[in-house]
Amino acid sequence: MSDREPEFENRVVVVGVGLIGGSVAAAIRQRFPACEVIGVGRSTQRLAAARSAGLITAFQTEWSAKLLAEPCMVVFCLPVHLIAAQAAEVASLAGEGVLITDAGSVKGQICNGVAADPAAAKIFVGAHPIAGGEQGGFEYAEADLFDGKVCVVVPSQCEQATERTSRFWSALGCRIIKMSAEQHDRALAYSSHLPHLMAAATAAVVSREQLELTGSGFRDTTRIAAGDASLWRSILAGNRREVALALRDAEQLLAKYRQLLEAGADDEIESLLQAAAVHRQRLNQ
Amino acid sequence: MSDREPEFENRVVVVGVGLIGGSVAAAIRQRFPACEVIGVGRSTQRLAAARSAGLITAFQTEWSAKLLAEPCMVVFCLPVHLIAAQAAEVASLAGEGVLITDAGSVKGQICNGVAADPAAAKIFVGAHPIAGGEQGGFEYAEADLFDGKVCVVVPSQCEQATERTSRFWSALGCRIIKMSAEQHDRALAYSSHLPHLMAAATAAVVSREQLELTGSGFRDTTRIAAGDASLWRSILAGNRREVALALRDAEQLLAKYRQLLEAGADDEIESLLQAAAVHRQRLNQ
Repeated sequence: MSDREPEFENRVVVVGVGLIGGSVAAAIRQRFPACEVIGVGRSTQRLAAARSAGLITAFQTEWSAKLLAEPCMVVFCLPVHLIAAQAAEVASLAGEGVLITDAGSVKGQICNGVAADPAAAKIFVGAHPIAGGEQGGFEYAEADLFDGKVCVVVPSQCEQATERTSRFWSALGCRIIKMSAEQHDRALAYSSHLPHLMAAATAAVVSREQLELTGSGFRDTTRIAAGDASLWRSILAGNRREVALALRDAEQLLAKYRQLLEAGADDEIESLLQAAAVHRQRLNQ
Repeated sequence: MSDREPEFENRVVVVGVGLIGGSVAAAIRQRFPACEVIGVGRSTQRLAAARSAGLITAFQTEWSAKLLAEPCMVVFCLPVHLIAAQAAEVASLAGEGVLITDAGSVKGQICNGVAADPAAAKIFVGAHPIAGGEQGGFEYAEADLFDGKVCVVVPSQCEQATERTSRFWSALGCRIIKMSAEQHDRALAYSSHLPHLMAAATAAVVSREQLELTGSGFRDTTRIAAGDASLWRSILAGNRREVALALRDAEQLLAKYRQLLEAGADDEIESLLQAAAVHRQRLNQ
């Protein structure tokens, strides 16, 4: 561990100390105990509790030039629609060596928002560690949440900033994959945003009485539907076009299943199910 | 335990020693070691292996009057389309005190099939323990698979037979809910069969490259899609009309999400997500 420490940041500012921000903080505290971890948020009470829990070493509820005078990595772990505006604020106050990254589940909206502010664009490299849980709050934070998980890094114009950001997420345990914001958003529409809506729809069409007759399959399939609706609203709105396309694909496939079922084309249904099973089994390998 | 034994069967014939049949056998062996458990199946090799594993005490690959001469509970744990015909065969050979139940995931098709044979109808009480897993084979059997799970029992004309069947599943750890085959099939279309298709569709629309960008949400949502396609073909075909109606509901809800997204009606999306989250959270209580 100690031979990795010089490679890591000396100061990290975590903006939004919830499940993700708390886990970023916890991972740093565990892996790089010498690193200062400053929490930024709205609630003094929550931040004080996070400090008592050992997740952060200090906290502030407002941005200041003093906080950003020295080199640090600022990590936005906020709902996606809040990130670009705050990144511009940070950029307006930032001294030498301040770099901004984020953990937002959409990248186009955020990267385009940041690009509108040249000062922010220069010191921002978007990222998305693909890890999470349906329980919010730093109380559910885990130091190994990012261990072995993919983190998408969206390369900026500045190669050095991109590499520093990749090193940051990699040091928390992530496997880095670089791609454009557009590629990311298209992929995540299918790999994450649609699954959330499928889970929500599956949960919603079951009546209260029918809930009694659900088994582990229903539980698994709908688990993520219990997640925070306002966070998901922000994600879906931030990736509107791609999610709508993914929804259309899903609707068409369900209609196909229905039509085959109504037509008694059971061989074809089995073929579709078999192909889906083989595809899904790839994740178990 | 010993004070429950007199209440239980002395002989149980498990037809189809896979995940469910194996778990029925395992639960009996653990709870009622004095009970004889006879496996019936096609493969001598597999049945011998199940006996070596301690799941069954004896086995046969064919029905015989001798096997069914003495009182016993015959439990069909076969794909749903095979059950009614074999129940008729059992009934034609059965002596006094032989009762038949099943663990099939649809009930209308099976109960109607059995009703066509008066001899079978007299000694059959359909059931559905809502428990399972996506891995097939008795190697995955668990003695506590049914513990605390709901088992639907479809009352037959004979109250005594219905009570004996309820006692049987209850003794394996199930919580009994009685309802008609029609009620069962409508509910399970939403609580189990649709979720399987939603999981399969969610898995299928993701490309191979996008699989790399999936997280735990996708894994949970699609887990059951890895299940046995031929078993699910049989279940879906056995509940064709109700599953088609459930699919239509799901299609309409996904279309609604898409239209709201396209229209920028994000408040309404959040309301739908919130309602689904509250509904799903009922299962965690």
